[in-house]
Amino acid sequence: MKSYLFAPGPTPVPERVLLRMAAPIMHHREKVFEEVFEEVREGLKYLFQTEQEVLMLTSSGTGAMEGAVTNLFSKGDEVLVVRAGKFGQRWGELAEAYGLVPTFADFSWGEPADVAAISEILEKRPGIRGILIQASETSTGVMHPIREIAALTSKREDVILVVDGITAVGVFEMPMDAWGIDVVVTGSQKALMLPPGLAFISLSEKAWRFAERSTTPRYYFDLKKHLVSARKNQTPYTPAISLIIGLHEVLAMIKDEGLEEVFRRHHRLADATRSAVKAMGLELFAKSSPSDALTAVVVPDGIDGLALKKAFLERYGITVAGGQDHVKGKIIRIAHLGYFDPMDMFQVIGAFEMALHSMGYAIELGSGLKVLAEKLA
Amino acid sequence: MKSYLFAPGPTPVPERVLLRMAAPIMHHREKVFEEVFEEVREGLKYLFQTEQEVLMLTSSGTGAMEGAVTNLFSKGDEVLVVRAGKFGQRWGELAEAYGLVPTFADFSWGEPADVAAISEILEKRPGIRGILIQASETSTGVMHPIREIAALTSKREDVILVVDGITAVGVFEMPMDAWGIDVVVTGSQKALMLPPGLAFISLSEKAWRFAERSTTPRYYFDLKKHLVSARKNQTPYTPAISLIIGLHEVLAMIKDEGLEEVFRRHHRLADATRSAVKAMGLELFAKSSPSDALTAVVVPDGIDGLALKKAFLERYGITVAGGQDHVKGKIIRIAHLGYFDPMDMFQVIGAFEMALHSMGYAIELGSGLKVLAEKLA
Repeated sequence: MKSYLFAPGPTPVPERVLLRMAAPIMHHREKVFEEVFEEVREGLKYLFQTEQEVLMLTSSGTGAMEGAVTNLFSKGDEVLVVRAGKFGQRWGELAEAYGLVPTFADFSWGEPADVAAISEILEKRPGIRGILIQASETSTGVMHPIREIAALTSKREDVILVVDGITAVGVFEMPMDAWGIDVVVTGSQKALMLPPGLAFISLSEKAWRFAERSTTPRYYFDLKKHLVSARKNQTPYTPAISLIIGLHEVLAMIKDEGLEEVFRRHHRLADATRSAVKAMGLELFAKSSPSDALTAVVVPDGIDGLALKKAFLERYGITVAGGQDHVKGKIIRIAHLGYFDPMDMFQVIGAFEMALHSMGYAIELGSGLKVLAEKLA
Repeated sequence: MKSYLFAPGPTPVPERVLLRMAAPIMHHREKVFEEVFEEVREGLKYLFQTEQEVLMLTSSGTGAMEGAVTNLFSKGDEVLVVRAGKFGQRWGELAEAYGLVPTFADFSWGEPADVAAISEILEKRPGIRGILIQASETSTGVMHPIREIAALTSKREDVILVVDGITAVGVFEMPMDAWGIDVVVTGSQKALMLPPGLAFISLSEKAWRFAERSTTPRYYFDLKKHLVSARKNQTPYTPAISLIIGLHEVLAMIKDEGLEEVFRRHHRLADATRSAVKAMGLELFAKSSPSDALTAVVVPDGIDGLALKKAFLERYGITVAGGQDHVKGKIIRIAHLGYFDPMDMFQVIGAFEMALHSMGYAIELGSGLKVLAEKLA
């Protein structure tokens, strides 16, 4: 059986990128690598829509999240942590691990953050120095209102907005500079279509001023050191060279397609997937503001979500993601970020219909596929 | 011109490993990956010669060094840092970044650590809780006497020996359990023949007891969390999947060759390289105890070391390493760790002779090659 990857990370790696990375390894202190590095830096600025340097860290995305916490804040600093899913919780854990004092803005899984509620907390707690949030909460498939929250923080010099853009950057419009976002983090294995192992972080000038004041101990993720090296087309420690070579290829693909078109493609796939799922009589887990990165679908009553996920894999060779923590077995998450095109979506919707059918669920075969075709025609 | 990599990391990646890593990416929460992971864990224990779990971190080797410092010690803890090169300095920087109180045992670059001196410091400063050292100092090509130092620490419950084995593990004999080493760290891009991006660390039971007491803040490199996940064939955060797939292949190669034979091969290449270099009338940078990982050679009087390194690359397509910091331009470092065999060494010695000859240095062409052939015949 063939294998198909529809989980929200790692996402499929384009064939030309796999082949480029399979070339013999080069040395990172040589001119040929520094030339690649310089082009990669430019490509990342285009992707992040920023004039700031985008730093490359050899780590999971969580490493860059840690870098944000340890470089921008100090023990005892108050931060506002938006929790509406698994990755919001991770910001909270990181903040607590480094002795920050978090105030939590909790929203139900499946709901976006409420801007008015966040604004109110900021008013009530003037000591808050940062907001830690996801742009796209991968565990729920919900997009948070980053533009509106940035409007709150960008007019204040004493609060920064730190955005986990791991399933947002390269998926939908989130111009870092234009919106006044202070920190954006992402990882290689999502819209960047690479294997996991590289993380990225960019800081606004305001955020760099915060970094000057931070006293949290750090070394491997010391961003100032990475900035100094990056400007010389280097990294302070041996980087994941093969992934940076792949990144060079990926950024060329993104540049060729054009960022606007990349966003349009993601929206088109997401919109068609959501419509197809609803036409199948299923409910989206996102109550509103669904992310174009992935579609989280509520497993219908009477169906075992874990068995459904297994049916996808064992019957059709398709890996989708289930739910995490308290929604384990209750949702199915279908990715459409990165190297996906319309044709891919017929596979996953076809499998979804057949899997439910095989489990005795009353579904009219073709109901989702019909709408998918109508949307994508 | 063809390209040849003779720097001590990254080292050449075997063709079969490059091809294996070029296969479509798999998801890390699937059974097929967990099966690979389980075999990799076994292979790593064989490589480290330990019964302990060997943890895989998605980072440069420096990330694992940081993990050792932040998991084993607390602010104010006294440690003994052996400095005899660039990477000894790194231990010192890490210790200071996290508020430890280092006592430095400094030795000249090119010299191994002196066991009697270390023993004396331990006697004089009973507060010392750990020794941080390299097994093979990559910046100088010198091997430190780990076995003898482990004999000092293993009889004490209150001191641990933390060894950076980045250019030692898989190069020469350093059985972690048998010698009583408490912590061994390595990286993927050296004897493990992989691209950079994975780091490894293993802790003795004594070291795990130290970890229980450490109060240093940490998250991404929290080793206890990695241990809990590893026992379930998982990692706490998305790992560098493609490198772990490559590692699976590499560990199979090492198992096939046999660790003893791997050590013998490295010693044979190192011994032949050292003999060839001496036959060329050159001096080894290591005054004694040269590492089998690489050969550091003193650039002869009247020759510009940077120009020599450039001649290797521009005339013969060969990347060798120069010296770092105060020995920049003064030494040339030739690697023979990882995917090297006797035939490779003729290239680098041939290039070395011709490069010196081209720079007007009085060398009898063939003098090194002759001895190389005699040694390897």
